[in-house]
Amino acid sequence: MEPLLVRAARREPVERTPVWFMRQAGRSLPEYRRLREQHGFFDINRSAELTAEVTLQPVRRHDVDAAVVFADIMTPVLAMGVDVELVEGVGPVLAEPVRSQADVGRLRVPDVEQGVAPVLEAIEIVRRELRGDQAVVGFCGGPFTVAGYLVEGRPSRDFAVTKRLMYSEPRVWSNLLDRLSEAFAAYALAQARAGADVVQVFDSWVGALSPADYDEFVAPWSARIVDALREAGVPSIHFGTGTATLLEVMAAAGGDVIGLDWRIPLDEGWRRVAGRGVQGNLDPTALLAPWERVEAAARDVLARAGGRPGYIFNLGHGVLPDTDPDVLGRLRELVHRETATHAGAQKSHTSGTPA
Amino acid sequence: MEPLLVRAARREPVERTPVWFMRQAGRSLPEYRRLREQHGFFDINRSAELTAEVTLQPVRRHDVDAAVVFADIMTPVLAMGVDVELVEGVGPVLAEPVRSQADVGRLRVPDVEQGVAPVLEAIEIVRRELRGDQAVVGFCGGPFTVAGYLVEGRPSRDFAVTKRLMYSEPRVWSNLLDRLSEAFAAYALAQARAGADVVQVFDSWVGALSPADYDEFVAPWSARIVDALREAGVPSIHFGTGTATLLEVMAAAGGDVIGLDWRIPLDEGWRRVAGRGVQGNLDPTALLAPWERVEAAARDVLARAGGRPGYIFNLGHGVLPDTDPDVLGRLRELVHRETATHAGAQKSHTSGTPA
Repeated sequence: MEPLLVRAARREPVERTPVWFMRQAGRSLPEYRRLREQHGFFDINRSAELTAEVTLQPVRRHDVDAAVVFADIMTPVLAMGVDVELVEGVGPVLAEPVRSQADVGRLRVPDVEQGVAPVLEAIEIVRRELRGDQAVVGFCGGPFTVAGYLVEGRPSRDFAVTKRLMYSEPRVWSNLLDRLSEAFAAYALAQARAGADVVQVFDSWVGALSPADYDEFVAPWSARIVDALREAGVPSIHFGTGTATLLEVMAAAGGDVIGLDWRIPLDEGWRRVAGRGVQGNLDPTALLAPWERVEAAARDVLARAGGRPGYIFNLGHGVLPDTDPDVLGRLRELVHRETATHAGAQKSHTSGTPA
Repeated sequence: MEPLLVRAARREPVERTPVWFMRQAGRSLPEYRRLREQHGFFDINRSAELTAEVTLQPVRRHDVDAAVVFADIMTPVLAMGVDVELVEGVGPVLAEPVRSQADVGRLRVPDVEQGVAPVLEAIEIVRRELRGDQAVVGFCGGPFTVAGYLVEGRPSRDFAVTKRLMYSEPRVWSNLLDRLSEAFAAYALAQARAGADVVQVFDSWVGALSPADYDEFVAPWSARIVDALREAGVPSIHFGTGTATLLEVMAAAGGDVIGLDWRIPLDEGWRRVAGRGVQGNLDPTALLAPWERVEAAARDVLARAGGRPGYIFNLGHGVLPDTDPDVLGRLRELVHRETATHAGAQKSHTSGTPA
């Protein structure tokens, strides 16, 4: 049997709603924190065994329907010759930001099989360890989000330097995005060859843009990544936050499933990407609330999904470090219990046509 | 003649579209930077003369239709007994975050006439200096945004500590917001008595919330501030960013004019707040582009406003520090030229009913 997540991404009726959590691997888990006492973040990604171990930890603990590769969206960027440090409490910080044609020229499009070999090998291990109905989710960064980190040199709220480059030197911008989308498409396909069943494109900060700017400066390059996946028959999830006004243009750029954040009610978001599946969209901060509130919020999301095919339960963004792991387990259990059907198909009264 | 901005806020036909820029006073102006070499930020607000001077600088330079009081949304919070520092490149940082009932209990609701006397006196000076058709815009912080700074103790992207408090200790939250909205309503009314013609409520980071959370945890307190202004006959502008899915609930909470950011096309945003005026919404980062791009973006905004009464031209958020002041002047000129009418009223073919 194919993984539940793959069938849901294709909008086939499924025996229960698949559940996984962005950032389920890593910082919220005590077993990960113990491991991190001995290993740096990027050191983990230099070892296939460690990467596989961290990737599998949340699947063992929470019994979720997918393992998401433990890596950072900057992982393949290291292989492009960029000096990035993940600074605790800050995020990715570059020794030298990428702001000119010469800077872009220095970015190597890496031989991914070489450059991220341990990550790919970890995917092989994880795929072997999982049950057939569980999926491996591979991922790469979205072109705007990674370009934003490269140009700013550090996390930014307004992406002013990035947008100035985009508006003032469109050739440098398009060369940069050419290179990133080429590298990420290759990275995503390599993950699929290694055993990833689905790939998610994380364009997390794309919500800084107006719809017109997204369309002009991002969509063509996002499309290259998801098109490459589509041609290879790999289902994709296209995700961003703050995207309420971008959903139509994001869906037009591509993705079998569109990730929704908590700012838009799930049913409204689904209407805006009609013809696609959706994933989301519980507020990660809602998991810090007392359980009764978490449960009510999750039930509201499920009600808005309405049992229709093409739905994947997830948060609207990554698990926060302070999240109690037990809450994630209870949540997984709740969603499975509430959406389970006897016949291995959706409940008859809710299995209408896709939104 | 009443200020243009006041008439526009009441959705009366006006002889040209009023223009001002959030954060027009301060960091983008060389004359301000020179002054700041000798005075700390909060020191300026301890002198009525300095505050008035900084408030007037952009009106002299750009000939905009309004002066916005030079202050920070944390200015009245100092008078509540909170120890805040504005850290360069970071934002407001508190010596001790406000997270418990005891912390909330220590917040004084200040005697505003005393606590922010120089700011109020500055408004009197500025009002005397301006022409009759120019407006003084007073402002205060929105309850969520200020509470967020107080609870986090510093700027935050996800407001996780704030939301945890909101969900887990709703009594502490409501006591905190009671106190803030009481202080801000008093502060806003005092500004109006001193000569502010319009007051803008800056709930800048409210876009971190889902519509349901906004409605439960913010709307009742925002309403108190704008209701107090309405009862006093003072037009209000209710502003936030990332609010595409919050516009209806924000408009329901109140405000004669709703501020829109650049993430939503202006006409679409206006439809969502039907019956109100709108202000906005050029992307502040767009001002870093070559002039042809700035002009095209501004013309697009004006076209979407369609010459209808109730429109105020502004950016979608504050002027960025790196903005060339000349671009602001050219932009003001462009908007005035493009929207000027001969008869002192809107163009006849566009002066239909308000949106």
